[in-house]
Amino acid sequence: MPQTQSAPGALDRYAHWLRGRPAPTPSWSPSSDLGADFISFTGGQPATELFPLEPLKAAFGRALVEDGAAVLPYSENIGLDALRQLICRRVARRGIHVGPDQVIVTSGSLQGLHLLGRVYLDPGDTILTEAPTFLGALPCWEKEEPRYLTVPVGADGLDLDRFEATVRAAPVPPKFVYLLPTFQNPSGVSLVAARRRRLLRLAQEHDLLLVEDDPYGELWFDDEAARLPPLRSLDGAAEHVLYLGSFSKILAPGLRLGYTIAPPGLIARLVAAKEGVDFHTDGVVQQAVVRLCDGSVDFDLEAHIAAARRVYKQRRDALLGALEQAFGPRARWTRPGGGFFLWLDLPAGARAAAVVVAARKEGAGVLPGTAFFPDGGGEHALRLSYANTPPERVAEGVRRLARAVSAAAE
Amino acid sequence: MPQTQSAPGALDRYAHWLRGRPAPTPSWSPSSDLGADFISFTGGQPATELFPLEPLKAAFGRALVEDGAAVLPYSENIGLDALRQLICRRVARRGIHVGPDQVIVTSGSLQGLHLLGRVYLDPGDTILTEAPTFLGALPCWEKEEPRYLTVPVGADGLDLDRFEATVRAAPVPPKFVYLLPTFQNPSGVSLVAARRRRLLRLAQEHDLLLVEDDPYGELWFDDEAARLPPLRSLDGAAEHVLYLGSFSKILAPGLRLGYTIAPPGLIARLVAAKEGVDFHTDGVVQQAVVRLCDGSVDFDLEAHIAAARRVYKQRRDALLGALEQAFGPRARWTRPGGGFFLWLDLPAGARAAAVVVAARKEGAGVLPGTAFFPDGGGEHALRLSYANTPPERVAEGVRRLARAVSAAAE
Repeated sequence: MPQTQSAPGALDRYAHWLRGRPAPTPSWSPSSDLGADFISFTGGQPATELFPLEPLKAAFGRALVEDGAAVLPYSENIGLDALRQLICRRVARRGIHVGPDQVIVTSGSLQGLHLLGRVYLDPGDTILTEAPTFLGALPCWEKEEPRYLTVPVGADGLDLDRFEATVRAAPVPPKFVYLLPTFQNPSGVSLVAARRRRLLRLAQEHDLLLVEDDPYGELWFDDEAARLPPLRSLDGAAEHVLYLGSFSKILAPGLRLGYTIAPPGLIARLVAAKEGVDFHTDGVVQQAVVRLCDGSVDFDLEAHIAAARRVYKQRRDALLGALEQAFGPRARWTRPGGGFFLWLDLPAGARAAAVVVAARKEGAGVLPGTAFFPDGGGEHALRLSYANTPPERVAEGVRRLARAVSAAAE
Repeated sequence: MPQTQSAPGALDRYAHWLRGRPAPTPSWSPSSDLGADFISFTGGQPATELFPLEPLKAAFGRALVEDGAAVLPYSENIGLDALRQLICRRVARRGIHVGPDQVIVTSGSLQGLHLLGRVYLDPGDTILTEAPTFLGALPCWEKEEPRYLTVPVGADGLDLDRFEATVRAAPVPPKFVYLLPTFQNPSGVSLVAARRRRLLRLAQEHDLLLVEDDPYGELWFDDEAARLPPLRSLDGAAEHVLYLGSFSKILAPGLRLGYTIAPPGLIARLVAAKEGVDFHTDGVVQQAVVRLCDGSVDFDLEAHIAAARRVYKQRRDALLGALEQAFGPRARWTRPGGGFFLWLDLPAGARAAAVVVAARKEGAGVLPGTAFFPDGGGEHALRLSYANTPPERVAEGVRRLARAVSAAAE
């Protein structure tokens, strides 16, 4: 009897974008690297030591016992007013002057990217990104199967001549431009100030929407980096820049708390879209952050961030020194002015894929550059995160990496 | 000079499904009803008095200080293992026997509906729902602009003859069937046990996917209602029933904590989809619920739910009595065996839209039946929630409603 292909069962009639895709295998697991002696440079995890456990405990306690009747029921889709006011005060310090009707609270800033896709993207639309870029953003838009245009990032950030040429040559204009202008994930570089103003002029000239993802912008290491203006803070940016911020890197990513800043009309669209995504972000978590910052508990968020800057700068310095010692002129790497990451161009002949495997055998975790290019690239580069590796472990980790590079080149 | 329609600016180039839709106005606001003397029968809010504030405070404190290093960083997309184990133990009490690889933790059970749409729906697909149904689910799928088929719900739940005829007559099979079989929102009725078995047989015969949304299933008022088996607990259900549960109604909706149960292959698809929605659900909230239930703090969830059943039954009884007194034989209403809601068919001549407005003037909040039909209906009915109205306020609220009905009929 001939075998016929049976039709998919009730549970297997997936949407078009998933047909033909293999069932996903368990992807990145946060615990997979955590052998006691393993040294990981992989994640975007903040330094575990920095989590303010006791202040958070006090703030959650206040939020529950004193404010529980307000924040344990369903609350507003847009987010708690007190938290949106707090966000407005905080972004004003960086030159972004908006009212709470221009802020939506999201379940991590990543959810802002998802809502953005829900509101803007049709199947087959074009998105322009930096190359390399934060590939974790791409799953937010995968259902629409967008086409990606990419523009390279150099030591001064996005190459604006290439950007302009790409925009002019695009058969259809990109629906939006996704950017991490400050302490970029994954490269660690920043768009220099003069280029920021030119980028906004180009956005005005070509009527582009710039999506500024800024999770690391407050974690600078020197005065020059501290003065980098967010794109959203520039004159005339309101109608061309959507800004995403996060409490993940300054407090804790497990809290899943972020925000998107946009004009009120667009905020109303995002709020309506959020009704069908998770209705609203956890009310207790929102109120706990309000309580953490309103003087109710013994905590100073600005002092906490200042301390975090010192910790991350020390770790960056440790990594820069270790790389110099291990590779010297045989390799090149970026010198981030803030944030969590640097980008390592491997010594000639070393392929990232082989180095990743060899490093794992040596007891060090690194991510291949290929993980950060939507349309190819990065075969000879790595992303290294120094954020969650104590300085005394950095040198040993880099020695392991150097052995892996030698082994992989053989 | 002739005025020409200008092209939309960078921020206004919305996706196809939003074009031509007016900018959304602020929708339901949880605080809008809360004048001191206002009596609201509108929301799906649980009784505020039941929130276990001190146990939650203790559980969050433990989750932060003792487990913070594990749950404040990024954690697994699928949810914490300990919470998924807890969910397995709890659903087993209702006859659903699954392992933690068949459970994904979601940011409210509503997010499970969103992920479901992300994985299954293409634009223009057909969804079959009860009529009336929980209209809050529909925003989860609005981007795909699905076609809705509806089947009426009677005193014994979904009309299965009509269901079968609708399925047979459908030009394309529905991608899934969305159901609240137990203490339905909005009608308060339940699908009787014999019909549950027939519904599963129909799903097997027609190869349908049943989506069982069950936020109220544990809040029964009598033994018969307690024995209603979830569809997912029936023999042969695994390949035809996706089950959604929630901590919103038994603990607090502001925590945004729910779960979806499905075979491991589908769970893997939902987990991959969640990566691009909010990455994972808040780790501290997940761990706090684990701590609340693992003996770490002075709390017994099962005793808490038993107490909640008594509170809601008392409120249901108060509402049934008040309706009898106010309307007698002039109106008809359901007699829910559990949950939060009952359905009121208004006296002849009264239109829901007018009654809602008149009731608001009288100081009582009710929702029109029209809010629960995807394709029309409910013009002469109301949904009443008794969950968050103390019994001593119920009689006064119904007197106001009765005056509104009289006023609206004039």
